[in-house]
Amino acid sequence: MNTPTKHDIAKKKIVDSARALIAERGFSAVGLSQILEVAGIPKGSFYHYFASKEAFGEELLRSYMHDYLINIHALFATPDKNGAQKLFSYLDFWRCSHIKGQVGDKCLIVKLAAEVSDISERMRRIMETGTASVITHLSQVIKTGQEDGSVQSTLPAHKLASSLYQLWLGATLMTKITHSSHPMDEAWQTSLTLLGCTANQINPAARKDE
Amino acid sequence: MNTPTKHDIAKKKIVDSARALIAERGFSAVGLSQILEVAGIPKGSFYHYFASKEAFGEELLRSYMHDYLINIHALFATPDKNGAQKLFSYLDFWRCSHIKGQVGDKCLIVKLAAEVSDISERMRRIMETGTASVITHLSQVIKTGQEDGSVQSTLPAHKLASSLYQLWLGATLMTKITHSSHPMDEAWQTSLTLLGCTANQINPAARKDE
Repeated sequence: MNTPTKHDIAKKKIVDSARALIAERGFSAVGLSQILEVAGIPKGSFYHYFASKEAFGEELLRSYMHDYLINIHALFATPDKNGAQKLFSYLDFWRCSHIKGQVGDKCLIVKLAAEVSDISERMRRIMETGTASVITHLSQVIKTGQEDGSVQSTLPAHKLASSLYQLWLGATLMTKITHSSHPMDEAWQTSLTLLGCTANQINPAARKDE
Repeated sequence: MNTPTKHDIAKKKIVDSARALIAERGFSAVGLSQILEVAGIPKGSFYHYFASKEAFGEELLRSYMHDYLINIHALFATPDKNGAQKLFSYLDFWRCSHIKGQVGDKCLIVKLAAEVSDISERMRRIMETGTASVITHLSQVIKTGQEDGSVQSTLPAHKLASSLYQLWLGATLMTKITHSSHPMDEAWQTSLTLLGCTANQINPAARKDE
């Protein structure tokens, strides 16, 4: 791996600093000067770092997906958890990132999928590859759960993973619309039903209210 | 009901004409002049019709939800269908509206929920009321299905309705990300599982490929 140049470091700083702003305001609504302002980079120098706003958007999504997959790896690497516990620790991580007022890295996929997929083919492709990778990881942990008996559903693991991911994307949209955590509580229950898990199979420490 | 004035008619024309543009490009990315251009209204006259872009957005969402609920009423009013058949005719309507290349009224909720909920409280509230109404309608038709035996799940109808709506919102986002109808096919199958319906209980004419 090459040592990053000053230019690379500045680019990364811009992308990292702008993530929360884009996650809050969206892609089109945020101007280039706002992006540079949060990064503390001189105004007017955007094109010194990125060929276009779309190129910045690609870098933002690539960096987000990279960090997200590292988080998933860490959650799923815990050796003393069964498949269902690993899966629900991921859903708990998702849930906590979106509850209003809670500090967390809000999902850029939920925020940008609808807005950006129709207007940038290159950003869409990064989201396509990234979400496919997340679903594959979920699928592997569901398979583990089917093998260790903590996931009772006998439906194909990849199908279950895909359904869960869809359900939680939708629940997150409903959380945005209702400004309530209720849709995520419902998604949690539906996930238990879909997977054929009982609350007892999940680590009770993770969800004391279950 | 009062006779609409010329001013009301022009406002409705602007909102109706801009719907497809906003459904394609999003809210923030579309400028006022583009909105007037598709409606064939003289440039520069936007504020003659709407106090702000947000006021236009509210009118757009109100009008969209009004038309959407009329469609649901029509789908659910069919007297010779059981509950499951009515429900799946709605899911088929949803599916057909989003398959690439197919003419349809793409869902403004999916398009705008993530983008707009964080930046306009007034637009968010219209989406909140509208989606609650859709879920209530779904819940009623699921209850009908539970009573006539076409829906086997004994979970509370409102819970099932809410889960289905989340699942299909998420599947629509995934359809946007993947440019494929596959996520909706998966959501169709997951809906059968969640409701405890078999493909035989659904009108075979509606989905010959099941």
